[in-house]
Amino acid sequence: MNRSILTVPVRKIEGDSSASFQDLLAVEDPLEIRLGEKTISITMRTPGHDPELAAGFLFTEGILEGTHQIREIQHSKNSITVRLNPDVEVDFERLQRNFYTTSSCGVCGKASIEALRMQGCPVLPRSSAAIQAAVIHRLPQVQRDEQAVFARTGGLHAAALFDFQGNLILLREDVGRHNAVDKLIGAEMLAGRTPLADKLLLVSGRASFELTQKALMAGIPILAAVGAPSSLAVETAQRFNMTLLGFVRDSRFNIYSGAERIQ
Amino acid sequence: MNRSILTVPVRKIEGDSSASFQDLLAVEDPLEIRLGEKTISITMRTPGHDPELAAGFLFTEGILEGTHQIREIQHSKNSITVRLNPDVEVDFERLQRNFYTTSSCGVCGKASIEALRMQGCPVLPRSSAAIQAAVIHRLPQVQRDEQAVFARTGGLHAAALFDFQGNLILLREDVGRHNAVDKLIGAEMLAGRTPLADKLLLVSGRASFELTQKALMAGIPILAAVGAPSSLAVETAQRFNMTLLGFVRDSRFNIYSGAERIQ
Repeated sequence: MNRSILTVPVRKIEGDSSASFQDLLAVEDPLEIRLGEKTISITMRTPGHDPELAAGFLFTEGILEGTHQIREIQHSKNSITVRLNPDVEVDFERLQRNFYTTSSCGVCGKASIEALRMQGCPVLPRSSAAIQAAVIHRLPQVQRDEQAVFARTGGLHAAALFDFQGNLILLREDVGRHNAVDKLIGAEMLAGRTPLADKLLLVSGRASFELTQKALMAGIPILAAVGAPSSLAVETAQRFNMTLLGFVRDSRFNIYSGAERIQ
Repeated sequence: MNRSILTVPVRKIEGDSSASFQDLLAVEDPLEIRLGEKTISITMRTPGHDPELAAGFLFTEGILEGTHQIREIQHSKNSITVRLNPDVEVDFERLQRNFYTTSSCGVCGKASIEALRMQGCPVLPRSSAAIQAAVIHRLPQVQRDEQAVFARTGGLHAAALFDFQGNLILLREDVGRHNAVDKLIGAEMLAGRTPLADKLLLVSGRASFELTQKALMAGIPILAAVGAPSSLAVETAQRFNMTLLGFVRDSRFNIYSGAERIQ
């Protein structure tokens, strides 16, 4: 039995006709993420790859610097406890404070962007590496072909990591867009492969500030979204020298930032 | 100038060709929601209808019971402060505690559902009112026709409230699905029209636990989603006697719960 899929009886209506059938649903269930004894977050996620999700979340939120800080990851049914090495200090106060105090304008998009810098989010290096537009055109189909659960439920977001030759490195699915990204980045971080330089992250939905932040924290130079980007996603990408692509589908896409990485 | 839309220069790639043009983006910017002096949430939202968003959030999260408890709503650029009447007591501790302690299984979907009941989320009454399938088939087109900002940016989620005759009552858009729902429910709550009995809420994306919770807190008997529902959304709808419809498009839909409200 696959824990990410549940079967339920459903009545299907088409025009005037009605029929009963068994539908497959994407499972949504809460996961508690703990750092030692402290609950950091409760997220609604699709079960599976939970340790990677927790590690990725702590990493992309700037709470953890990397796998070298982790002593152990304990897994119970809907709770992950990450324990750090004794010499690691986490300044929770600072993390929360940053959001408010980094800009004279108070709470605003600029303050959010500035808070990323304070959390240690790096400005991406200018790179000589680039990816061909023809390679990018192929990626959405590769992602869809690999999306096993989505194909059966229609209910999951995906995040897929590619190299610049268009080879799929890893794909993760979740009911939450941010969780799919955390699972993917967490897996790479735990394997010691961050920062993910010369990689492209493709997300199935829209590009928000939150997803842009997560990709930046992992050092990913190109974020590509099947849907539209938000204004703050574009501003953030520009500020940190990231390439941001939107509407990546049907052999077309828009470049919102960092055109020099596209051939 | 419309604050929910921003114009940016973009390079558009189609196959091998490239062209520059001005694209319209949905604005994403943080909003701080305060209850008195206490910051309750910072949400990334599309500016506009901010007081309704704050009031709707506090209401659908079970913190506020209704407009009669509100003394005033103060609005600054990216911050809304809701002040309650002096006799209203909010038990913040209880709200947070509920999530953990309502079920012996710890953190899990059942505990999340049980927490809704503890927050005062009502089981919906059995009703003799029903809506015709033919009316439901028309709703997605009405929603799209009304979605002014989405049409220009491709970047916004929508929530639309209809009566059982298919008349559109209110539509709200936002980069965040939950925010669109909070704006809509907040507006109705502030106007003294909750609970929203004999109404249908149509959302542009998928039906998650969170959206189901929000609709339930407002007493909405039918939640219809253009996309797929999650497992926990279906379980929640069944538990509280809500009608849940998914894949509402192209003259078809699936009934996951509460078929007696569909003719």
